[in-house]
Amino acid sequence: MEDHLMLADEARRLLFLEARTANTFAADPVSDEQVRAVYDLVKYAPTSMNQQPMRLLLLRSQDSRKRLIGHLAKGNKQKSEEAPLVALLAADMNFHERLPEVFPHVPAAQSLYADVAVREQSAKFNAALQLGYFIIGVRAAGLCAGPIVGYDEQAINRDFFPDGDRRVLAVLNIGLPGIAPWFPRLPRLPYEDVVSTV
Amino acid sequence: MEDHLMLADEARRLLFLEARTANTFAADPVSDEQVRAVYDLVKYAPTSMNQQPMRLLLLRSQDSRKRLIGHLAKGNKQKSEEAPLVALLAADMNFHERLPEVFPHVPAAQSLYADVAVREQSAKFNAALQLGYFIIGVRAAGLCAGPIVGYDEQAINRDFFPDGDRRVLAVLNIGLPGIAPWFPRLPRLPYEDVVSTV
Repeated sequence: MEDHLMLADEARRLLFLEARTANTFAADPVSDEQVRAVYDLVKYAPTSMNQQPMRLLLLRSQDSRKRLIGHLAKGNKQKSEEAPLVALLAADMNFHERLPEVFPHVPAAQSLYADVAVREQSAKFNAALQLGYFIIGVRAAGLCAGPIVGYDEQAINRDFFPDGDRRVLAVLNIGLPGIAPWFPRLPRLPYEDVVSTV
Repeated sequence: MEDHLMLADEARRLLFLEARTANTFAADPVSDEQVRAVYDLVKYAPTSMNQQPMRLLLLRSQDSRKRLIGHLAKGNKQKSEEAPLVALLAADMNFHERLPEVFPHVPAAQSLYADVAVREQSAKFNAALQLGYFIIGVRAAGLCAGPIVGYDEQAINRDFFPDGDRRVLAVLNIGLPGIAPWFPRLPRLPYEDVVSTV
C-alpha cells in the first residue's frame, strides 16, 4: 500500500500512534526548560490573524496545586495530585492588544475585535487550536499530556484569573507515565463517518 | 545547549519550524487517499471523553466550490479558488449520539450532554482541538494547510449544513505551495509573555 505521509515512522509513533493520555505519572520532574522547548516548537503553528491567545499558568507551588485540586471533579483529583507538572491552559480575552505587534501590516486588525463577544469567541477558538498544538508538542518532548476539562470552571477563573482577562480552557497534567498509566485505547470513528464529499 | 525534545529535527522542520500557511497553491491534486492518511494519523489525538466531534466536508464539485467562494470574505476568495482541495471543517452538535460506542465504559456519558448549550460548547472546543491536530497532519503529508475563518458563517451553515447538526469552524485550503506562497513569518509572542508560574 502506498504511503501518503512524509513524516517518519518514528515521529508518527511518538506524536500520534503510540502516544497516550496518561492517568498516572512517574515522579521525574518536568523543568521550565522542557516547557520552553515545547513552546518554542509549537508557537509557529497558525492562529487566526496570528492572535496567539493561549496562555499557560504553571502551578509550581504547593499552595497553587492544592487550590486547583479543590476545584477538580472527584475523578480527576488524583491525577493532578500525582503529576510532576500541572498547568492551566487559558485563553487571553485581551489578545487583541498585541495585534499591532504580531499582525502589524493590518492596522485595523485590533478594531475587528472591539466587540467583547466576537473577541471571546475568537480567543477561545484559537486557544483551543493552540492547545491541540501544545499537546502534540508535549509528546514531541517525550512526555505525556493529560488534558482535563472536568472541573469547576468559574471557581478556577475566580481563584487564578481574578482580573477576568484570562479564562481557563483545560487543565494539563504533564510528565512521564507512571504505573498502569492508561486503559486500552478507545475506538476512533471511521473515516467514512467523519469525512464526506459534496 | 541541551536539546529537550525527542522529536527528530527533520520532523520539527516538517511540522512546525519550516511549515507555513499557504496563500497560493500549485495545481497538483490532493487525493482522498491523502486525506484518509492524514485522518488515520491524527484521529488518535485526544478529545474530551473521546468525543471526536470534528467533521470534514470535502468540496470536490465545481458547484460546491463556487457556492463556498460566494460566502468567503473578499480577500479570501482567490486562495480557495486556486487550492486543489477545499474542505469545510465543522463541529458535529450531535456527537453525543456516538458516545455509547466511543466511550462505552461510562454509560451515563451521553446524559452529560443532554443540555444543548453544554453540548455545543463542548463540540466547538473539541473540534477546534482536532482542527489543530488536523493541520499538523496535513503537514505530515507534506502538504500545506491554509485555514480561513473570514466568511459568512451563517450563510455557510445554511448552505452546506441545512439540518443544523453541523456548524462550520474553519475553511481549510489544502495543497502544495504555489508561486510566492507566503509572506515572511510574523512575530511570535515570547515565552515570558505566554507562560507564567504561580
